Amino acid sequence: MTDLLAVVDTLCKTPRVGWLQRGAWDAESVCAHSLLVTLLAGEIAARLNAEGAEINMAEVLAVAAVHDLAEAVLGHPGREVRDRLRWEELEEEIFKREFPHLAELFRWYRYETNTVGKIVAFADKLATLIRACRYKQLGYPTDDLAKALYKKLMAYDGLAHILDYYVGRYCGGVLP
Amino acid sequence: MTDLLAVVDTLCKTPRVGWLQRGAWDAESVCAHSLLVTLLAGEIAARLNAEGAEINMAEVLAVAAVHDLAEAVLGHPGREVRDRLRWEELEEEIFKREFPHLAELFRWYRYETNTVGKIVAFADKLATLIRACRYKQLGYPTDDLAKALYKKLMAYDGLAHILDYYVGRYCGGVLP
Amino acid sequence: MTDLLAVVDTLCKTPRVGWLQRGAWDAESVCAHSLLVTLLAGEIAARLNAEGAEINMAEVLAVAAVHDLAEAVLGHPGREVRDRLRWEELEEEIFKREFPHLAELFRWYRYETNTVGKIVAFADKLATLIRACRYKQLGYPTDDLAKALYKKLMAYDGLAHILDYYVGRYCGGVLP
Amino acid sequence: MTDLLAVVDTLCKTPRVGWLQRGAWDAESVCAHSLLVTLLAGEIAARLNAEGAEINMAEVLAVAAVHDLAEAVLGHPGREVRDRLRWEELEEEIFKREFPHLAELFRWYRYETNTVGKIVAFADKLATLIRACRYKQLGYPTDDLAKALYKKLMAYDGLAHILDYYVGRYCGGVLP
Amino acid sequence: MTDLLAVVDTLCKTPRVGWLQRGAWDAESVCAHSLLVTLLAGEIAARLNAEGAEINMAEVLAVAAVHDLAEAVLGHPGREVRDRLRWEELEEEIFKREFPHLAELFRWYRYETNTVGKIVAFADKLATLIRACRYKQLGYPTDDLAKALYKKLMAYDGLAHILDYYVGRYCGGVLP
Amino acid sequence: MTDLLAVVDTLCKTPRVGWLQRGAWDAESVCAHSLLVTLLAGEIAARLNAEGAEINMAEVLAVAAVHDLAEAVLGHPGREVRDRLRWEELEEEIFKREFPHLAELFRWYRYETNTVGKIVAFADKLATLIRACRYKQLGYPTDDLAKALYKKLMAYDGLAHILDYYVGRYCGGVLP
Repeated sequence: MTDLLAVVDTLCKTPRVGWLQRGAWDAESVCAHSLLVTLLAGEIAARLNAEGAEINMAEVLAVAAVHDLAEAVLGHPGREVRDRLRWEELEEEIFKREFPHLAELFRWYRYETNTVGKIVAFADKLATLIRACRYKQLGYPTDDLAKALYKKLMAYDGLAHILDYYVGRYCGGVLP
Repeated sequence: MTDLLAVVDTLCKTPRVGWLQRGAWDAESVCAHSLLVTLLAGEIAARLNAEGAEINMAEVLAVAAVHDLAEAVLGHPGREVRDRLRWEELEEEIFKREFPHLAELFRWYRYETNTVGKIVAFADKLATLIRACRYKQLGYPTDDLAKALYKKLMAYDGLAHILDYYVGRYCGGVLP
Repeated sequence: MTDLLAVVDTLCKTPRVGWLQRGAWDAESVCAHSLLVTLLAGEIAARLNAEGAEINMAEVLAVAAVHDLAEAVLGHPGREVRDRLRWEELEEEIFKREFPHLAELFRWYRYETNTVGKIVAFADKLATLIRACRYKQLGYPTDDLAKALYKKLMAYDGLAHILDYYVGRYCGGVLP
Repeated sequence: MTDLLAVVDTLCKTPRVGWLQRGAWDAESVCAHSLLVTLLAGEIAARLNAEGAEINMAEVLAVAAVHDLAEAVLGHPGREVRDRLRWEELEEEIFKREFPHLAELFRWYRYETNTVGKIVAFADKLATLIRACRYKQLGYPTDDLAKALYKKLMAYDGLAHILDYYVGRYCGGVLP
Repeated sequence: MTDLLAVVDTLCKTPRVGWLQRGAWDAESVCAHSLLVTLLAGEIAARLNAEGAEINMAEVLAVAAVHDLAEAVLGHPGREVRDRLRWEELEEEIFKREFPHLAELFRWYRYETNTVGKIVAFADKLATLIRACRYKQLGYPTDDLAKALYKKLMAYDGLAHILDYYVGRYCGGVLP
Repeated sequence: MTDLLAVVDTLCKTPRVGWLQRGAWDAESVCAHSLLVTLLAGEIAARLNAEGAEINMAEVLAVAAVHDLAEAVLGHPGREVRDRLRWEELEEEIFKREFPHLAELFRWYRYETNTVGKIVAFADKLATLIRACRYKQLGYPTDDLAKALYKKLMAYDGLAHILDYYVGRYCGGVLP
């Protein structure tokens, strides 16, 4: 799949199936999700740096921007499909074959092998959480997902205050 | 996933990823594909009955109409995902859990256990073939897929004249 | 109109005008409606069979799947257009000309000439009712339609408990 | 149907069914068609005035802008539906009930009772012709429609040079 | 930009960016807005005429129908872009070059040089106000815009009762 | 505009107006363009590194991913609007206010102050060129744009072989 136009258009026209399954009319595309992760990860890095961390902003943005590229080949199947495969390994295999120059950046995220990867993994879940909150506020039944994600995000050490900020900003009336 | 509105909307908003990967702007949804299979299977049954067969029209239409329902849960991932799973078994499992009253009809199609199922399986591939031909005629590179499907369809005994008819009608300039 | 690709795409791109006229952003297409009728009719048949009826599941699904095909030719005009024509006869004429092998199945539904046709006619109205309820829950003024359909559905003998089930499941806050 | 937001959104989300029936992916909406008629009618009036005519530009634009409003109520059904009704009278009835202040302008167009109405009626057909030419150039089978419209447009006295200009500009390779 | 098909399709596919920036899924296009202004302006003229005014209905409709044509060339940028340019002069320049036969009508609206232009300018703001109210009722944060527009509309002499009517009809729960 | 969901959705729903103005049905969104620039810039960096350069891959990806963020506020107006403003300064101002932590990365690209920024600026034009070629191959009149971009891309020192590769891959039949 070496046609980059097709890669981009596949990612920008593939809806994330979890929103469809909860009845949302206007399901976020994979590429819109990736951009949201990029913006969130960049903001988080900036906040942490303001607190004294030394996170490489470019690396955070880069990893976030490419973290879902394998879905151009794999599509975005339902949870039950992912659970039956070693999805991570499959994604990595696609990266090695189609985007070998990006495979290392992908690994940082997927296996959370360094701080950059951990921030992007956190931002990935957070992006889904705040989108779930917005859908809920508009009348769609996404609270199950919001709660499950919130719990996972609470498990990240040292990012609780970041989580609090975004929940306060985007999840009014959905999460406590 | 007991919300039938969400089942329908997921199927009607999930693009078939193979068209996206070949650059098509307006990728057929899973539900549009199912309807095309239904119409083709009905026409084929009518033709065969006119030639003296005794095919149950209602059964052909019914099986075709529901054959892809599992994709409401599974989504429509790329070929590489399907190839790594026992996709058929996964679909059957979804039918048993979500649509148990339709599971037998699904099995006819999936395992081609009777003539009705065989016709729907043929119509399923044929529907993809003629859509591939149309995309090709509009300028998209789908000929690889058209050729592969044509070969598979040739392997169906007793349906060669049916195949010829549809290729002549829809694949001008794409297949010989 | 012998091009089946055009038949399918017309049905899947024609919005049901009643939703547009009530301001809904994301009006259900004719083909999404047909799929919903198919799923509902299948569920209803399964329930009735579990209660001891002997309804042919394939026939119910088949009739539901094709019941609106004539709209590929006729489009989906407003209520006032339908009311001024013998719409049923016009539909039947289209079936006879374009889909003669399906014309008998259509008649079962349209004139409710047997139990199968009656169930599909019930499911057709029910599909519109539960979609109206969903639109209302999202903020659109479809309650007039919901109430009118509920009244019509109450008139079907022996299906009141079916109606109750679906209203309880999909119409919370809209119907009593 | 006094909700003007719904009137507008119905017109802008109702595809003209003739394009769907010829397989076009991106069928023109009724409101896009109305705008095209408005722009064409304005250009034609300007050309005729430059040749010495005295056509009221505002009237031409106004009639064109509203000429299809009745479709907010009636929808945009297929040709066979229109042919079985006194469609013109039905449209007029809708105007009288819903848009009484516009009913006279509508009549100018519909019955070509004056020069303004005649120009808009010409522009209405011309808009459909040049759209048909564009669809044909992109690969859709609309030439039957283009030819039929061209013939009708040739019957307008004194506008042959206008027709020639637009055919030369938009119909290269479609009409001679 | 002499291709009228491209002019129309640009206007009908360009979303008004203010709605996107407030999160609306289904942002009104420029051409849908123009049609709403046309319908409102026509209704307002009819009401004023019923009160004894002598407003030329065709002129009001014509000016409204074309008032945003320059956006086919300019697009629909954000407020900050418009504020840094003499946007009005830029629009006028486009009219003179692309649609010289409509430039005078545009000027009536843009500079409110006569009653017709003033009514269209009022209807333009009113159309945005009632759309903002509808978005708010569906859950989007457009109240800032609604309030700002209401204030501007209050400044139009002799139209307060018109404003009251539309606010009562469309802005329940949004404006007092 | 601190709502990141609205930022993302604005970018993913804003069509690039130049494609609309050339009649393309399916105009690329700003966010799809940004993703294409990111993928191209990454590939180019990988090629140059394989030739012995030492380009920071993460920086190239990061700058590309964010280079058009200001359009969430500014929209994507036509060329004539941009030409009348100091567009670059306006973009920079938005970055400083809305995304201060990304402003330096933006400057690298906008003013081509280092190799990373130069590669992204090249990839930005190249992304538009190959999209123009694809539109042309599908029948839209974008060759003027393709030629103008090709000329600008030729002016980049040391990247001629990169340009040749992409033109050979994507512009068959459009550029020599």
